[in-house]
Amino acid sequence: MVLSSVRFMRQQRFCRCRKRYKNAHHNTYSTEAALITPLDEAKRFMVDCFVAVKTSQDNAQIIADNLVEADFRGHYSHGMNRLDMYIRDIQHGTTDPNAKPEIEKQTAATVLVNGHNGMGAVVGKKCMEFAIDKARETGVGVVVAHSSNHYGIAGIYAQQAIKVGLIGMSFTNTSPLMTPTRAKQATLGTNPMALGAPALNGDYFLLDMATTGAALGKIELAKRKQQPLPIGWALNDEGKPETNAEIAYNAMQLMPLGGTELNSGYKGYGLSMLVEVLCGMLSGSAYGPNIRKWGKSDKIANLGQCFIAIDPKVFAPGFEQRMTDLMGYIRKLSPVDPKLPVLVHGDPERNHMNKVCQEGGLRYVENQHKTNAKLADQLKITPMVSKSC
Amino acid sequence: MVLSSVRFMRQQRFCRCRKRYKNAHHNTYSTEAALITPLDEAKRFMVDCFVAVKTSQDNAQIIADNLVEADFRGHYSHGMNRLDMYIRDIQHGTTDPNAKPEIEKQTAATVLVNGHNGMGAVVGKKCMEFAIDKARETGVGVVVAHSSNHYGIAGIYAQQAIKVGLIGMSFTNTSPLMTPTRAKQATLGTNPMALGAPALNGDYFLLDMATTGAALGKIELAKRKQQPLPIGWALNDEGKPETNAEIAYNAMQLMPLGGTELNSGYKGYGLSMLVEVLCGMLSGSAYGPNIRKWGKSDKIANLGQCFIAIDPKVFAPGFEQRMTDLMGYIRKLSPVDPKLPVLVHGDPERNHMNKVCQEGGLRYVENQHKTNAKLADQLKITPMVSKSC
Repeated sequence: MVLSSVRFMRQQRFCRCRKRYKNAHHNTYSTEAALITPLDEAKRFMVDCFVAVKTSQDNAQIIADNLVEADFRGHYSHGMNRLDMYIRDIQHGTTDPNAKPEIEKQTAATVLVNGHNGMGAVVGKKCMEFAIDKARETGVGVVVAHSSNHYGIAGIYAQQAIKVGLIGMSFTNTSPLMTPTRAKQATLGTNPMALGAPALNGDYFLLDMATTGAALGKIELAKRKQQPLPIGWALNDEGKPETNAEIAYNAMQLMPLGGTELNSGYKGYGLSMLVEVLCGMLSGSAYGPNIRKWGKSDKIANLGQCFIAIDPKVFAPGFEQRMTDLMGYIRKLSPVDPKLPVLVHGDPERNHMNKVCQEGGLRYVENQHKTNAKLADQLKITPMVSKSC
Repeated sequence: MVLSSVRFMRQQRFCRCRKRYKNAHHNTYSTEAALITPLDEAKRFMVDCFVAVKTSQDNAQIIADNLVEADFRGHYSHGMNRLDMYIRDIQHGTTDPNAKPEIEKQTAATVLVNGHNGMGAVVGKKCMEFAIDKARETGVGVVVAHSSNHYGIAGIYAQQAIKVGLIGMSFTNTSPLMTPTRAKQATLGTNPMALGAPALNGDYFLLDMATTGAALGKIELAKRKQQPLPIGWALNDEGKPETNAEIAYNAMQLMPLGGTELNSGYKGYGLSMLVEVLCGMLSGSAYGPNIRKWGKSDKIANLGQCFIAIDPKVFAPGFEQRMTDLMGYIRKLSPVDPKLPVLVHGDPERNHMNKVCQEGGLRYVENQHKTNAKLADQLKITPMVSKSC
């Protein structure tokens, strides 16, 4: 998927140069790094790791593609950063890297899938393939999976549909980290959702968001830098908004998108429920407070996920033209700060991909290289080769 | 729809007594009113108004049902408050009260509808009927309409699906009032979305939200009361967050859900785009900045709308049981403030409906009664009869 994305970018008019949202969409720590790892070497290393713990060659490729794609797009928290955890889960038997997603039930437009505790990337890719097949038959496909695992960034599945000219949507439930409005106990997940839609000449819209105000990673970063948090990110143990990053990190209670009740935080909480309706409720997986705690691998995750593909051609002609027109209008809006142009969702990732292409690879932080060296040693595989900037 | 909702509430275990979100979900000005209007009298009056301007009896019933239902649920801004505007639009020929929504294209799971500039309530009800029919056949129905008009509260269409045991979703684009992150020009609408899902014994989840941080009505209310706005609701002409309600009201630039970029306002902006993709982009209606300005009837609205129905039965058995379990768990969460219990979306509306049932009717403000008296006089129909509290 990564290499085809690179080709895709080069062929199409993707290499528009735009400033990124500062500290908004990504963990941007990669810019501090001194080593550059080519995309195909990052993938090679991860494939070798998965194969070393007895993952089939096909599945190893799918999982590595998923993780490198996240890094390529600048979502480093969801890329190789997860490799260590994935390998450990496979070694401990918490996940089954060779499980085959199975159709349990289907109609002309829907599929219920049993993920059989397989890797999220494998289950997700197969589910979106089913959704695309159904959309090609009937205009829409809705696929719901239970017994799945962390599936990486939700946007990858939306992108899978975009590449064949369809609208793609994806949703997953996650471990409880978000506290509903008025409560003081994390009950629902960050429950991300994505929607992607193609425009002309390979351009596209791609929204990929957690339904919380901020990711846990951002609070961790503020804690490390001893910076205060804005109101609206996190609560303390009493359920009050907390600005001290250390107290907030220990409390592990994220606020829903919107933040306080006055600022409509109940809408973000409602969106998290929307994701849970489409995932846990429809699929019969674990849900809400029943999902294992964040960072724990003591029991299987049994996550629920939902994938939707819609063929714009079954509606009014000219869909991609309208997308291009609206996105073009928005990108040309006069910005408040001339240094920060108005963006459309997907632009920050495109900018990161451009940067990676220009630099010839990914900039992983030192800790990632250390983790990789340990993994190479432990699994007896060729270490990852990077070059100095 | 209203009267059947009353029966539905009486038959089912809806009359749970819960506190409402204060100043969060509704215009609550009705509590100041001194007169009570029975639901059937409010409906009778509105039907007479529509029939007087040559609306068919059937369509008059549908539109009046839609408006009374909004009032019944406590969303007074979207109920009889709109009657005057609807009547004026019909009289000026801006909308056609007798237009028949027409199927332009369909597959086993999708329909494209031409609303022929009919009333939004008529187009919306028919579209959700199509979506329900498709969902019964294939498990899912996606219906998209162009050439529609304001369709009332989005939740009404989700509720239509809930009543037959399905998940219902609804989306509509609206006049530009929301300013994308980093910009200083209102470009997209408040673009509301709704998702409803049935639980056991008539209970249900019903999220019905605009994708902005606050409704324009809330800013108008703060202006009238000379109260400051919180950061995150609105911008001034320079595109900076504004706390002075009068300046904000004149600027007419709402912030997306989340508010500032630091608080992930780009997610709310992305959700507004998601709604536009499903509405304007798919349907070929007006979209984004091309939609007529808010409050203007100088040209036809040509709104785009999307309706989705999903049959939970095509996925894992036990959907309603899981909904009841999760909603019950959340409602029992220990609240930060014991006077403000944790709610599930739909609870505030249920509380309002209980209150209306207990009081024997709706409490309209004095201005509404004055407007109605003028309408009755102008249209030569029997005035609305209310009783003192």
